[in-house]
Amino acid sequence: MDADPDDALADVLSQVRERVEPDADERAAMRAAVESLTRRTEAALEERGVDAEIVQVGSTARDTWLSGDRDIDLFVCFPPERSREELARLGLQVGHAVLPEGREEYAEHPYVVGEIDGFDVDLVPCYAVADATEIKSAVDRTPFHNRYLDERVTPALAGDVRVCKQFLSGIGVYGSDLRTKGFSGYLTELLVVEHGGFRPLVEAAADWTPPVRFDPEGGGASFDDALVFVDPTDPGRNVAAVLSTENVARFQHFARDLLADPREELFFPEPLEPLGEAAVRDGFAARGTTPLAIQFDRPAVVDDQLWPQLDRSREGIADELHRRGFDVFRTAAFADDDRAALLFELAVARRPTVERHTGPPVHVRVHAQRFYEAYADADAYGPFVEEDRYVVEREREFTTAASFLASDAVFDVALGVDVEATLEAGYELLTGDAVGRLADSFGRELSAYLDPTVRAR
Amino acid sequence: MDADPDDALADVLSQVRERVEPDADERAAMRAAVESLTRRTEAALEERGVDAEIVQVGSTARDTWLSGDRDIDLFVCFPPERSREELARLGLQVGHAVLPEGREEYAEHPYVVGEIDGFDVDLVPCYAVADATEIKSAVDRTPFHNRYLDERVTPALAGDVRVCKQFLSGIGVYGSDLRTKGFSGYLTELLVVEHGGFRPLVEAAADWTPPVRFDPEGGGASFDDALVFVDPTDPGRNVAAVLSTENVARFQHFARDLLADPREELFFPEPLEPLGEAAVRDGFAARGTTPLAIQFDRPAVVDDQLWPQLDRSREGIADELHRRGFDVFRTAAFADDDRAALLFELAVARRPTVERHTGPPVHVRVHAQRFYEAYADADAYGPFVEEDRYVVEREREFTTAASFLASDAVFDVALGVDVEATLEAGYELLTGDAVGRLADSFGRELSAYLDPTVRAR
Repeated sequence: MDADPDDALADVLSQVRERVEPDADERAAMRAAVESLTRRTEAALEERGVDAEIVQVGSTARDTWLSGDRDIDLFVCFPPERSREELARLGLQVGHAVLPEGREEYAEHPYVVGEIDGFDVDLVPCYAVADATEIKSAVDRTPFHNRYLDERVTPALAGDVRVCKQFLSGIGVYGSDLRTKGFSGYLTELLVVEHGGFRPLVEAAADWTPPVRFDPEGGGASFDDALVFVDPTDPGRNVAAVLSTENVARFQHFARDLLADPREELFFPEPLEPLGEAAVRDGFAARGTTPLAIQFDRPAVVDDQLWPQLDRSREGIADELHRRGFDVFRTAAFADDDRAALLFELAVARRPTVERHTGPPVHVRVHAQRFYEAYADADAYGPFVEEDRYVVEREREFTTAASFLASDAVFDVALGVDVEATLEAGYELLTGDAVGRLADSFGRELSAYLDPTVRAR
Repeated sequence: MDADPDDALADVLSQVRERVEPDADERAAMRAAVESLTRRTEAALEERGVDAEIVQVGSTARDTWLSGDRDIDLFVCFPPERSREELARLGLQVGHAVLPEGREEYAEHPYVVGEIDGFDVDLVPCYAVADATEIKSAVDRTPFHNRYLDERVTPALAGDVRVCKQFLSGIGVYGSDLRTKGFSGYLTELLVVEHGGFRPLVEAAADWTPPVRFDPEGGGASFDDALVFVDPTDPGRNVAAVLSTENVARFQHFARDLLADPREELFFPEPLEPLGEAAVRDGFAARGTTPLAIQFDRPAVVDDQLWPQLDRSREGIADELHRRGFDVFRTAAFADDDRAALLFELAVARRPTVERHTGPPVHVRVHAQRFYEAYADADAYGPFVEEDRYVVEREREFTTAASFLASDAVFDVALGVDVEATLEAGYELLTGDAVGRLADSFGRELSAYLDPTVRAR
């Protein structure tokens, strides 16, 4: 413990601030790239006689980017009179003209991404609507966010935004993608602005009692989330909608940790060493559990489509295992560019030959007699009478969790369309020592899963 | 199926009626014994200058006894002015005078039991109170019951009472002792009288929807039992208070069975063959469960004291096993004159080294920090964040059910005073194949437990 933790925190924050601030050379290179891109975009628009405004958005527009980030977002804002078809066509034409090596990606409408001078550039067409509540497509909102923050993120606050982003990243809760379910850049900036800095935000978060609500412009709708930040440009939208309850709690945990024991390590954690096959086997053996895994080719969809399906499959299969008596201790989903896996760590992986099945109350004569007759001559024990009901002990469909996972009954679970199609083409069921083979692709994830010193994740 | 089931049932009932009716010789012997006993009791009372009425009660008094029963109950009714001490002293004096070879037993006050001419005689002193609601001791009620039934059990109904008792006995629900929790003789007679015979009773019972209530004299209190028969001599008492919900349901089941397929076998079932050691082992192996048993010397108390304690111990230990993650499939308690045993058949007998332990919500700062600090440096995985709470995976106290049953933690369960004292002196823990040794004392009970053809018990 430091004698004066206030000073210790200030020291840590100023160290971090320095590490994440882009230096003059980096800024100059960024500025030059943006200027050149803007000029070429203007030229491409002029050439086509199109009237549209070019807006640089995102963290690099507002000086809230972390040193090392190489993302430039340029929005081309067309008048709302243009049809969607025109917008898409012109957007792609301009995009390919500016980024001749670029490729097309799709959000609500297509856009071009490419590389210029070592920067990753997104050139996105959108509508220049008068108000954020009148947007025609989700991307139309971005210029409004940009404008709102531009007016509020002072140079001093920009430094705090960078520190905050690095903190959230260090503790694993930065990013509004559907794998992380964390804090978006926009949400981070809003929170820092709202609290007047990173430190007051952390001090407030340490004492939050969710649900926590911020509505700086007032009049926002009500939302059923642990953290609500009403979008100042659209009262019908919670900026923190993707943020999970767990990540709010993690942020609170690490906010307290930072205040109690300020250290740079929270911002820049050591990466975990990937576990090897033997270490994975030994890890589960020490816990005395039974790990089972399904491994398969990664479905050819983007992360934001894949992860909700992996989560749904993992939860659906875990529920079904539980329903069938195989108590699930912990689960995980893993994916890289080639492979995906669902891990089920079981507390109970084997059940007796028989299972209890409770029938109707004996006094409900017709139902009761039907139940009794169905089982009296079947290969079962009973029916017995227990309290006021018939109970029978009949043969269990699956006596091991592995036999369930190897069966077609897995497909009765709602798995998500791409995961289901992939599993139908075939999957690898890993049981016993073979579970160690997960380490071939997911050694680092398994390190986080099995390392007893990993906390609050 | 018989072409006319009504006739088939009538045939069966008349066969049974014949088998259970005492013949002329049996009646004559009974009458002679009662007369001789009454004379000798009168003489003993006269000798002591005591004014008391002698009343023969019970089934042998009302001709509702089953052929072969050898029980004579003689009540000596003293004026209520006598003190309890006098009643006890005089009762024992008279008892020993009439039954010189007799021994003393204790209900609310002592009485003498003995054997005369092959009959088992209870000679019970009681108070001759004016009304059953003014009784001074539970036995004072019996003469009232006797008088009530004397006026209502016609010779025709007496035959039906005998048939009904034999039926209840055959299906295992006759007897208001605390092991059986079935129908008392008094309740049986009341039900037959109320319905005007055995057959109408069975037809009604097949359609009962518990709670079922009978209150022939009206004005009875309300009771929370599956079957309520308000005592016609005391509106504050449910004659069926001891009868379990299960035994009501069993009676309904077998009532329907008798109506659908009338057969004497329901009244006189074949006794089960006791299982041997190997058959017990094979029986559990076929079910794929893990049986564990505690065997010990029978505590030196009467059945009505022992059985509630065995039931409480069995349920208490089963609950604790369940709480500790060892899923209990079925349980049983056994006792004979020498030994007692508690059997726990488990679906899950082994758990992982680790167990989940859920802590407070992260946002409850003081509690949450205390929890976190308690486990962060302990030999445990986590704390993690799950939803809004800390969760830790810590070492489990008992990883096998057998280790729990072998430990002192068993004594943290409420066992009942005599069972607890006996277990403290030592018990045998039977696991694996050793469970077969239960067959040495309880082969017949285990036959009922493991035989898949035993129904509705």
